[in-house]
Amino acid sequence: MDRNWMRKSVQGLTMYYNPTVGDALRMDTNINVLGSNPAAEAYLKGIAIDTNSYPNTYSDGLRDALADLYGLQRENFVAGNGSDEMLNTAFTTFVEPGKTSVTQPYPSYSLYSYFTDLASGKMREVELTEDFQLDVDAMVGKGEDSRGVLIMPTPNNPTGNCFRQKDIEEILSRHEGIVILDEAYSEYARWTMIDKVDEFDNLIVSKTFSKAYAMAALRIGYMASNLKVAEMLNSVKVPYSLNKISESAAIAAVKDQSFIRRSVDMVSEQRPKLAASLKSLGFEPYPSDANFILAKAPIDHAKLVEGMKKRGILIRDFGSKRRTENCVRPTVGTEELNKRMTDAIEDVLAEEKR
Amino acid sequence: MDRNWMRKSVQGLTMYYNPTVGDALRMDTNINVLGSNPAAEAYLKGIAIDTNSYPNTYSDGLRDALADLYGLQRENFVAGNGSDEMLNTAFTTFVEPGKTSVTQPYPSYSLYSYFTDLASGKMREVELTEDFQLDVDAMVGKGEDSRGVLIMPTPNNPTGNCFRQKDIEEILSRHEGIVILDEAYSEYARWTMIDKVDEFDNLIVSKTFSKAYAMAALRIGYMASNLKVAEMLNSVKVPYSLNKISESAAIAAVKDQSFIRRSVDMVSEQRPKLAASLKSLGFEPYPSDANFILAKAPIDHAKLVEGMKKRGILIRDFGSKRRTENCVRPTVGTEELNKRMTDAIEDVLAEEKR
Repeated sequence: MDRNWMRKSVQGLTMYYNPTVGDALRMDTNINVLGSNPAAEAYLKGIAIDTNSYPNTYSDGLRDALADLYGLQRENFVAGNGSDEMLNTAFTTFVEPGKTSVTQPYPSYSLYSYFTDLASGKMREVELTEDFQLDVDAMVGKGEDSRGVLIMPTPNNPTGNCFRQKDIEEILSRHEGIVILDEAYSEYARWTMIDKVDEFDNLIVSKTFSKAYAMAALRIGYMASNLKVAEMLNSVKVPYSLNKISESAAIAAVKDQSFIRRSVDMVSEQRPKLAASLKSLGFEPYPSDANFILAKAPIDHAKLVEGMKKRGILIRDFGSKRRTENCVRPTVGTEELNKRMTDAIEDVLAEEKR
Repeated sequence: MDRNWMRKSVQGLTMYYNPTVGDALRMDTNINVLGSNPAAEAYLKGIAIDTNSYPNTYSDGLRDALADLYGLQRENFVAGNGSDEMLNTAFTTFVEPGKTSVTQPYPSYSLYSYFTDLASGKMREVELTEDFQLDVDAMVGKGEDSRGVLIMPTPNNPTGNCFRQKDIEEILSRHEGIVILDEAYSEYARWTMIDKVDEFDNLIVSKTFSKAYAMAALRIGYMASNLKVAEMLNSVKVPYSLNKISESAAIAAVKDQSFIRRSVDMVSEQRPKLAASLKSLGFEPYPSDANFILAKAPIDHAKLVEGMKKRGILIRDFGSKRRTENCVRPTVGTEELNKRMTDAIEDVLAEEKR
């Protein structure tokens, strides 16, 4: 067996980054710096679970809690094993292998092309405008592309900004095919289009418990859409894919929104302060609605990231990529973490000047 | 949006059976009747977990524990969210949409055709011989089919018997493409081919924690194969797909094999007794190496299953399917559960005679 036996569209894939990070401070993955979710932790502490019975087939308990939270119906939701399973399911549902194009803006999230490969779709990238906003005409596309799948994260990753709602709504109206909004970071923007799923018949909103909810360890994600599209997605989705413990912990977390509010408030307060500190250190930060900031570095990006790593702090490097040349993407921390981070940056800059 | 927007191969799918079962005794799903896994339960009781960090990308901890258990290397393994994710990954890796055939024996496990639809493969079914053994020549197939994916559960579900190892080895030698052995119930047969993965370059063994390990609630599955094939599978598999708690509970369960031994011993002891009881009640039970028995009922299968349900016991009905006409498939229980089950059967039979 060699790689010629593999599906053509996946032959180029390799195993994912699997770093041994030790004790480094991870300001590179944009998880919630306030740490573990207290409601989920409290649930886990009291746990006494029969491991021997299957979970509910479609995670009805979690879907009911989400319906309550957003004022929608259980049947608007699809729940599963992280937003990765959700995107995989959406692509398997709506991508005809070898035919359907999947369109994403550039620069944006790199993992969409992986899921496009799994689904044997054709990746199409559309440049964002100068200010990292959507090029509506190009996103909608012509001919077959106007019937393809569009996907965009908002706030966008790695640029940090939200796209304009009127642009998204114009795309939803003009594009014939499915439009997936990946709202992984939307809590931090205090913004969502999940309340519009019954208004647009081609809208899928994808959300995760791995970011603001601080529950990446448990792999929980969900999608919302109108009833017809949700039924299609659920009929394709692998049954029982969300394990019982993660589902129960997610329900506890949904019902206690105080941690989410506190986390979002913290980021709203610290984000402009961190941007100002970075600016005063010679960086050029871009406007952000998320819990991270894209910023052009005043010295070589690779040297900066390496110098930070030596000081026990990981930040994400986007400096070798087109349109984010020499940029890094630190997570917004607490006042203390940001001080530690900017002190380390200052130290690296001073070393470089010598 | 209507179903015409869906991938052609999935347009016929509908949502899975999602029953409300209440308090009924479930002798229909073949989970371990001894209940929750004690090592996993003990792990969960003491749990204090940071929900905020991602699991290990490829579940290295679990793969190391499995390597120890079977005398293989970490790199022989792929671990993930239940054997459902494993089969989905294997099909995505080796099925070229619209081209590759997926061959399974008949009668066998019905979910393979669902995964074939997700992967846009072409399902091919090959009749088992009179005694439910493999038709080696037909399984290997001709032309393009000899390069397709073969999948077979052993012990087979729903018939319960193991296939002959020499037949499987002949298939592995003569078939050019991938051969997946689904060993979901193999612990009960005290038999596995996982020690052969380095010997055959096209063998994938798939296993689960949902049956003998009694951990269906946690969704854990894995595959083993030679190093080259495992690398291909891992490069396609969704990273981080096994959550942290399930991984840790699985490690605890692998390291304590006493519950598995006890469960397998119990089934070995009770299986012939249950078969004898069924026979004395007029059933024709088929030979089984698993924790369930396929048996032709002495009265109409639907009436039997309905009568059992009324008495609070669910057994699985295969009576309307070709080659298992009028058959049911009860799980092998403990002495007490089997008595409760056969008493209820006797009661139903008596009622029918009246």
